[in-house]
Amino acid sequence: MAVQAAEIPQNTTSAVDLGPAVALSCRECGERFPLGPVFACESCFGPLEVAYELPSGDVEELRRTIEAGPKNIWRYAPLLPVPADVASHPNTNPGLTQLVKADRLAKELGVTGGLYVKDDSGNPTHSFKDRVVAIAVEAARAFGFTTLSCSSTGNLAGAVGAAAARAGFRSCVFIPHDLEQGKVVMAAVYGGDLVGIEGTYDDVNRFCSELIGDPLGEGWGFVNVNLRPYYGEGSKTLAYEICEQLGWEIPDQIVIPVASGSQLTKIDKGLKELIRLGLVADKPYKIFGAQAEGCSPVSTAYKAGHDVVRPQKPKTIAKSLAIGNPADGPYVLDIARRTGGAVEDVDDEQVVDAIKLLARTEGIFAETAGGVTVGVTRKLIENGQLDPALTTVVLNTGDGLKTLDAVAPTTGPTATIRPDLDAFRAAGLAG
Amino acid sequence: MAVQAAEIPQNTTSAVDLGPAVALSCRECGERFPLGPVFACESCFGPLEVAYELPSGDVEELRRTIEAGPKNIWRYAPLLPVPADVASHPNTNPGLTQLVKADRLAKELGVTGGLYVKDDSGNPTHSFKDRVVAIAVEAARAFGFTTLSCSSTGNLAGAVGAAAARAGFRSCVFIPHDLEQGKVVMAAVYGGDLVGIEGTYDDVNRFCSELIGDPLGEGWGFVNVNLRPYYGEGSKTLAYEICEQLGWEIPDQIVIPVASGSQLTKIDKGLKELIRLGLVADKPYKIFGAQAEGCSPVSTAYKAGHDVVRPQKPKTIAKSLAIGNPADGPYVLDIARRTGGAVEDVDDEQVVDAIKLLARTEGIFAETAGGVTVGVTRKLIENGQLDPALTTVVLNTGDGLKTLDAVAPTTGPTATIRPDLDAFRAAGLAG
Repeated sequence: MAVQAAEIPQNTTSAVDLGPAVALSCRECGERFPLGPVFACESCFGPLEVAYELPSGDVEELRRTIEAGPKNIWRYAPLLPVPADVASHPNTNPGLTQLVKADRLAKELGVTGGLYVKDDSGNPTHSFKDRVVAIAVEAARAFGFTTLSCSSTGNLAGAVGAAAARAGFRSCVFIPHDLEQGKVVMAAVYGGDLVGIEGTYDDVNRFCSELIGDPLGEGWGFVNVNLRPYYGEGSKTLAYEICEQLGWEIPDQIVIPVASGSQLTKIDKGLKELIRLGLVADKPYKIFGAQAEGCSPVSTAYKAGHDVVRPQKPKTIAKSLAIGNPADGPYVLDIARRTGGAVEDVDDEQVVDAIKLLARTEGIFAETAGGVTVGVTRKLIENGQLDPALTTVVLNTGDGLKTLDAVAPTTGPTATIRPDLDAFRAAGLAG
Repeated sequence: MAVQAAEIPQNTTSAVDLGPAVALSCRECGERFPLGPVFACESCFGPLEVAYELPSGDVEELRRTIEAGPKNIWRYAPLLPVPADVASHPNTNPGLTQLVKADRLAKELGVTGGLYVKDDSGNPTHSFKDRVVAIAVEAARAFGFTTLSCSSTGNLAGAVGAAAARAGFRSCVFIPHDLEQGKVVMAAVYGGDLVGIEGTYDDVNRFCSELIGDPLGEGWGFVNVNLRPYYGEGSKTLAYEICEQLGWEIPDQIVIPVASGSQLTKIDKGLKELIRLGLVADKPYKIFGAQAEGCSPVSTAYKAGHDVVRPQKPKTIAKSLAIGNPADGPYVLDIARRTGGAVEDVDDEQVVDAIKLLARTEGIFAETAGGVTVGVTRKLIENGQLDPALTTVVLNTGDGLKTLDAVAPTTGPTATIRPDLDAFRAAGLAG
């Protein structure tokens, strides 16, 4: 059962300090609600998002403040739903990950206008989820929650477990009971409660929705449910960092993975904010969505010219993108079409090839989602949809160490030899 | 066969530009040699290290230059054996990892003077090895090498593979043939040649030494053999970053893992340089070495009051520290004794406990080496050798994702339940 705006508990409607965030606003009908742990509009059931009163002073001063700020996402605190003193709170402090000038990859792909990889494997638990969870932690604090929770099959569980530990929250994370042992260890090692649910990921999600509506879940902040409006804003920091790292310029083209689609919509939101504030010059940019063929509801709709996204049953190695019924799918279609981008997909073999291409050209070992964005970039260039003469940023949102199985069957030693020079000479590897 | 200073090839004795590095100097007899790919003194066979002409101008200007520099180790280029324009070269750009104020861990350990964890899992391939390899890459470039190589059982292979890919070198890495598949994948994914050697790690090392002395190895830079003097300097950046992140102050106590011992000696060297330059105030500091009981040649010598380190046959889960005959062991003893520190060890069970302690208090999932430093910190406090009222920095040099096996047997779900509220209530996890 979804908690709607009408049900905001009294103790959370008092003036919470979340910095420039002043209200929640319905993305469909525009109705406004006080800041609180709610996520659906009471009038039209549309998704709520954070509305701001952004800084209106001297833009150069704002730029200097940002540049002199912490070397993590809190440098953008004036643009995020967090209190001004957020950097002094215990949190995982993700962000300011490397924007890698990928000249060798560019050469292989034929990109001449400048190619960059935004490598979010440098975050504390090695995925972009640390960004969104860090914001959710601050909202949970403001609303007086004591337990952090989520449903997850991987990256999110680790990000929530780590952030809860650092910030002093209890955590209780729900996973399908039959996950691989490695993922279970990553989710459990931070010492919170980890509950295996006998059922599929969809069963886990349904159970979490029930729990939110029940007294058993009182005091619980589910980062991707009742804290979702705040959580989602963490993805804006990818837009801020990319532009700052390019010398306060918007790139011409950005390739973004699409799971629920939230990340792509928030990056677009972030770019528009930077333009409105005057931190970057207004210019056209194209946003491209990337999916795996085995879970491609948005690219299928894009290519068919539909506005409606028809759910799919996922079957792909890109498990972190395997959301068959993406909540923000229609918004992704809007943005790709409005900006002149596209949504494309690649099959699992192309994902593996792209992981290896990125590793051997740039020394970045991406998880499968990174294989999807690099593979889609190559396909978009071949299709003529992405212009290789323009500046292009490709996102890698996670770490190859978490999806070793994707490349393991085709990745091994060149040779195995006895420890002597004759054997080495015979192997033909000298020179 | 070791390459000694007399054998420097002619084409490398010409003035190479490695910034403030002006010569190699023997740590035993002090004799100086031109910069080149050599590592042992021609007179006394002692280890060579880099000698500098460090900046002598206005210290405040140097500090401002560093603070305005790249957000990675290249901000310290004026203090490293790299050309001044190093930041514009393709490289992995490691460093400026988080110094985490570990208040919750401090509480558990009873530290009142301020406890920090320097978390090097934030580096590109998630271990401190990225720092040393990044410097070796610049030396390899300066000496005209075209292949980067090393012997490795894990972290180093990944760091070399990634850096070679980024920087456009060929790589050829040697590993024991019977490594776990996960480690083989991590070493092979960057697309360089990976050679399994039928034998132990010692056999791999002996083979590499033979290869360096043979024409087959011409043009090869072995980062931890013929490039070792440069490579080792990368560890100085840990000292620089810790002090800068503490507001240009030296901490009272530092706990450092000891494998070969190189890292500990270079951190001490880095601190002394900062004092000499005036970037930090001169003050006493204590350096502590941390080993695993199953490979504790240095702590055994320390406790016995010996100056000589007797080799051991390693048997510990802390494989990245499992060097039974540590080259820099005697220097570690000197430094621990001179600074008033100590060298201590913990057993494998204590290592696992410490990994979990760090994870549940600070949300940092360390590899076994991090369990060693945290476990040793706890033991040193209990022993009364480390003063909990003083500012203390503990190093975590690697990532728990690479040593999942250490915690897997004892890390799992709290409960497994059906997806309904009654089952959840019965599990007793609400509230």
